[in-house]
Amino acid sequence: MSSIELTVDGMKCGGCSGRLKRVLEGSDGVLAAEAAHETRRVTVDYDAGRTDPQAIRQRIEDSGFSVVA
Amino acid sequence: MSSIELTVDGMKCGGCSGRLKRVLEGSDGVLAAEAAHETRRVTVDYDAGRTDPQAIRQRIEDSGFSVVA
Repeated sequence: MSSIELTVDGMKCGGCSGRLKRVLEGSDGVLAAEAAHETRRVTVDYDAGRTDPQAIRQRIEDSGFSVVA
Repeated sequence: MSSIELTVDGMKCGGCSGRLKRVLEGSDGVLAAEAAHETRRVTVDYDAGRTDPQAIRQRIEDSGFSVVA
């Protein structure tokens, strides 16, 4: 299992962060995700044989959030 | 120009609704969109030659929201 930790802009409330968590956990190859609007931190555990950081970042951007780091 | 009006669950704050508006307005064939978390209403003006209600509903669901009507 691999993990990435990202800083994501655009989460304003628990609805925002909860939705991003669910979107990520519904994505192919993602094993678990946590998103916190208070800290802007998003952590994603993934199967490196099925997805990669670029695809995860793209999924976040496609959902209307911005990966800033 | 065609328009649809939908009821969408999952918008908790202005961050949620603002993001959904931007996601929709960035989608092919969408001319304008409004989203209000207070009322759960989403209105979308679109070019029927380039997209359709099914694609718009799918884009909303892919962003982690639920179209309920």
